[in-house]
Amino acid sequence: MRTLMDSILEEIEAERTAGAGVLGKRGAELISFFISSYSEEGSSFLKELIDLTKRLILAQPSMAPFFHLANIVLLAAEDQNDLQGMKAAVKGAIERFNLHLRTAARKISELGRGLIPPEGKILTHSYSSTVLRTLVDARKSGQIFRVVCTESRPVCEGFQMARELCELGVETQVQTDAAAAYTVKDVDLVLVGADCLTPLGLVNKVGTYCLALSAKARNVPFYSLCGTEKLLGAKMLGGFRILKKDPREIWPHPAPGVEVLNFYFDTTPLELLAGVVTEEGMIPGSEIFRRFQKMRVSKYFPL
Amino acid sequence: MRTLMDSILEEIEAERTAGAGVLGKRGAELISFFISSYSEEGSSFLKELIDLTKRLILAQPSMAPFFHLANIVLLAAEDQNDLQGMKAAVKGAIERFNLHLRTAARKISELGRGLIPPEGKILTHSYSSTVLRTLVDARKSGQIFRVVCTESRPVCEGFQMARELCELGVETQVQTDAAAAYTVKDVDLVLVGADCLTPLGLVNKVGTYCLALSAKARNVPFYSLCGTEKLLGAKMLGGFRILKKDPREIWPHPAPGVEVLNFYFDTTPLELLAGVVTEEGMIPGSEIFRRFQKMRVSKYFPL
Repeated sequence: MRTLMDSILEEIEAERTAGAGVLGKRGAELISFFISSYSEEGSSFLKELIDLTKRLILAQPSMAPFFHLANIVLLAAEDQNDLQGMKAAVKGAIERFNLHLRTAARKISELGRGLIPPEGKILTHSYSSTVLRTLVDARKSGQIFRVVCTESRPVCEGFQMARELCELGVETQVQTDAAAAYTVKDVDLVLVGADCLTPLGLVNKVGTYCLALSAKARNVPFYSLCGTEKLLGAKMLGGFRILKKDPREIWPHPAPGVEVLNFYFDTTPLELLAGVVTEEGMIPGSEIFRRFQKMRVSKYFPL
Repeated sequence: MRTLMDSILEEIEAERTAGAGVLGKRGAELISFFISSYSEEGSSFLKELIDLTKRLILAQPSMAPFFHLANIVLLAAEDQNDLQGMKAAVKGAIERFNLHLRTAARKISELGRGLIPPEGKILTHSYSSTVLRTLVDARKSGQIFRVVCTESRPVCEGFQMARELCELGVETQVQTDAAAAYTVKDVDLVLVGADCLTPLGLVNKVGTYCLALSAKARNVPFYSLCGTEKLLGAKMLGGFRILKKDPREIWPHPAPGVEVLNFYFDTTPLELLAGVVTEEGMIPGSEIFRRFQKMRVSKYFPL
């Protein structure tokens, strides 16, 4: 059992392309497997559960849903007094988490579609499955609009976003990241996903900050589509890390002596956001702090 | 003679990598050649000079020094009454222009060096020979500082900037354009060149706008190093064009149906600039408009 869990954790750690939804589901499976295979009696269940959630977070320390998953299973466990109660409560929490993952994108899409002005021009950044779903649903329901996609260096996920939108009949344009920040002046709406939302700001693909800044300067509304599994309160941020990536993704053969700094995420202050569209509803930029205050964090949260 | 001038103009039009200094010098040579080979008497000299300056501008309609050169030779000619007077006056204007090109960068470097704080971190964008000269002179005179270079998509001139700085002993780092706009928060100074300065703003490599916006938001001083040959008053802007470039520079094999928009320059509002360093001295951002009001434009300016 220990060996299988180790190898699942190693797989999660090695994963480089899967989105938050896919990884979230895999994290939930890992904890379910732990519960179903835990057969000893005694007090070590909670200790092992805390340890497992810690290892899950450390495997992908920028992946918000793992922090959320850790918190909800530990909250569920901490209210129980015996092993059977803990197992049942954690199982229930995982079921609610999986249900959330299945339904949140649909609810966000319904709300997000309402932001798109008729025949409007929307700018989006990088690849977000939630933004893609929202735009595709809008197109299928007959809404007409155009989309500017950033190339989104260094990995250029924006090309894939543009490809998928275009295949579904959306008029799509690609620009460099630097050009798109300038082009914000000509669009009606900026719509981005989220990797994580914290009281310090929206953590999303690097380049989001300057798009938001430009949107604010030009009075263009800037929204993030963000399921609540990506909201992390201040007390949950201890283990959150933005990792440095391979410099050669930017410059394959750098000049000797030049340092090439590659990082994938930046943080956009919350006051630059017109709002955050969650499955619970639209949270205006000015009220996001209130949402964080409502969050309960387990006393066993591991980092 | 006509044929040789045509071929020089075609060469200028085809040029894609030479900077403003090199092209300015070549434009001055072209007009000198026209003067020295013009042998007819009569009133057509001025008409042909106007036509030549128009063709020079249209050959590179984003190249500010050509507009400046056209203006100063036409201003010189319009004050004269006869052919010999016109020839001599235009020749004098070209000599002053060439002298200006030789000396402006040195004067700008002297002033620009004063902006660099001891052991400061400077962010620059794209490749600017004036910024490079200033940083290299500063290093040679013993100043210690670090530089962040943008990659500067789509052509990545920033790599060459980083290479040359590093070879001259400056501690240099490269980042993506999108990352650099975020990194502005950690630097002491943003220093960029200029392709053109107009009453509408600083025209420079695309991405400059979001760096300036970010610098303003973070209270980081943002300066442009810009010889006065790049200052174009409102009456000189009729022929100024920012051209669309080859989409494949951004995305070599774009998905069918996706438009890829490639342009090299954006415009940064003057109020975002702390100042402009010219060979005449430092012009604070708030006083640039006054400098434009002082500009005299020839009644024969061709566009």
